[in-house]
Amino acid sequence: MTAAPVPAIGLDRLSLNQVTVKHLGLAEAAALCARHGIPAIGLWRDRVAEAGLAEAAAAVRGAGLHVSSLCRGGFFTYADAEGRRAARADNRAAVTEAAELGADALVLVCGGLVPGSRDLGLARRMVADAIGDLVPQAQRLGVRLGIEPLHPMFCADRSVVASLGEAIDLAARFPADAVGVVVDTYHVWWDARLTDEIARASGRIACYQVCDWMLPLPADTLLGRGHLGDGVIDFGPVSAAVTAAGYHGYVEVEIFNADVWAAPADQTAATVRARFAAALGRGEPSGPGYPGPPGAAH
Amino acid sequence: MTAAPVPAIGLDRLSLNQVTVKHLGLAEAAALCARHGIPAIGLWRDRVAEAGLAEAAAAVRGAGLHVSSLCRGGFFTYADAEGRRAARADNRAAVTEAAELGADALVLVCGGLVPGSRDLGLARRMVADAIGDLVPQAQRLGVRLGIEPLHPMFCADRSVVASLGEAIDLAARFPADAVGVVVDTYHVWWDARLTDEIARASGRIACYQVCDWMLPLPADTLLGRGHLGDGVIDFGPVSAAVTAAGYHGYVEVEIFNADVWAAPADQTAATVRARFAAALGRGEPSGPGYPGPPGAAH
Repeated sequence: MTAAPVPAIGLDRLSLNQVTVKHLGLAEAAALCARHGIPAIGLWRDRVAEAGLAEAAAAVRGAGLHVSSLCRGGFFTYADAEGRRAARADNRAAVTEAAELGADALVLVCGGLVPGSRDLGLARRMVADAIGDLVPQAQRLGVRLGIEPLHPMFCADRSVVASLGEAIDLAARFPADAVGVVVDTYHVWWDARLTDEIARASGRIACYQVCDWMLPLPADTLLGRGHLGDGVIDFGPVSAAVTAAGYHGYVEVEIFNADVWAAPADQTAATVRARFAAALGRGEPSGPGYPGPPGAAH
Repeated sequence: MTAAPVPAIGLDRLSLNQVTVKHLGLAEAAALCARHGIPAIGLWRDRVAEAGLAEAAAAVRGAGLHVSSLCRGGFFTYADAEGRRAARADNRAAVTEAAELGADALVLVCGGLVPGSRDLGLARRMVADAIGDLVPQAQRLGVRLGIEPLHPMFCADRSVVASLGEAIDLAARFPADAVGVVVDTYHVWWDARLTDEIARASGRIACYQVCDWMLPLPADTLLGRGHLGDGVIDFGPVSAAVTAAGYHGYVEVEIFNADVWAAPADQTAATVRARFAAALGRGEPSGPGYPGPPGAAH
């Protein structure tokens, strides 16, 4: 069987999510991108705060970088009104920051079960309400919210939005310019309906993030991500689906991995570039074909 | 908000999956069930083999137990024809054993990615072909195959069938008396479409297994299961959906957990009974309601 060619994604669309070089401050990460010809960066709020918002915006602009995302808003699920109020205030601040930074998306990690509750429906309603509260400000400031479905293993404690389909259903309640979805290969690669769901997300993809799924999964499952090619994900079909859905924005490499974090940042940036070119830049399907029906002699 | 009452499931439908008392041999596990008034047991093939097939069948019948499932067939995904041939032979043996034991279902854990391949589609086609190969024998012997979707965190290495929807789509290619699905709360609880998918599985539910999802997840994610009530799963809505879908068979408590395995078996059996009655026998919704819109004073 010959697979259809996969549209290539060039290095001109590479973005480095700064958590991949976790130990660098914002200015250092921006300089790293500039030094390695990486045209965009995904920022994290703690690093932006550390640098100062205006200074952070000036630093990335000065380095000639586009900001593909700001990570992150969300964590909307609290049992008490005070907790929800604080989360709303924090998310409003995040929208303001995303606007100031010119980020393509404010990534939302929506939060797990409400403390003390096992009611998924309750948590999901709370998330939808909180996003609805943010939409007017996001529209006013021209910021797009990106709902990121996390892998279902994080459903209880980090995101009750646990599949791309669910994220799309949630985003679809709001205008597409205000609320989209984030496709992160680590979180969604396993989904048998992924291709169809990505097609359904057409016009709603706010950010596309890539990293690999490592085996075995480490004890801290947050850190089971690897450089493209070090794990099991076939990036070609996912990228082809994202492209076919009309997404032509930056593609962020975002890696949570203790070994990657311990490596020299220049080495990490070089590896990110090389692996991106290999995994997304060629358009080749990977893996052997199915060598005939089981048991057939060959 | 008042939730609708949930149909109760009585202790007359409790089954103890023998892996919950992992260190007991088959005869000991059967005696344990009899001693604790547990009317059914889920068996594992290694323990059946250890006892001898005819002896195992005699032991469970002698203890007055019904066999709610045999665990497990599957692991169909091999790169080489010899591996696939061996898997087929092993699965044929499992069907024969399930027939001899009078098991309600032969549970299938379908296998992960094909070694050396990142192609999920390839693995899924291989699984479908292998199940198709088993169906005639299963029908001849009156054995029902139960496709068990595993949690997506096991997609790479244990089961490319990673959601209930996918399992139903796969089962639906075959006659309902020959191929059904297994609903295991640990694997599917996170799914926003779960209620709809369980409804769609009407007439196809071959086995219903329950255990809780523990936080934090242990380093070995296979073992992150707990007694009902020790984790975050709301068993009422899932059980109500399974009941509404027409499933009236046994409900297996199946717990992989190092602490549970280390506990005295009689204590485990007593806890299983008590927690089952509490979580499934009452029909009460759990958790607090949503106390009004975020930010409202109350």
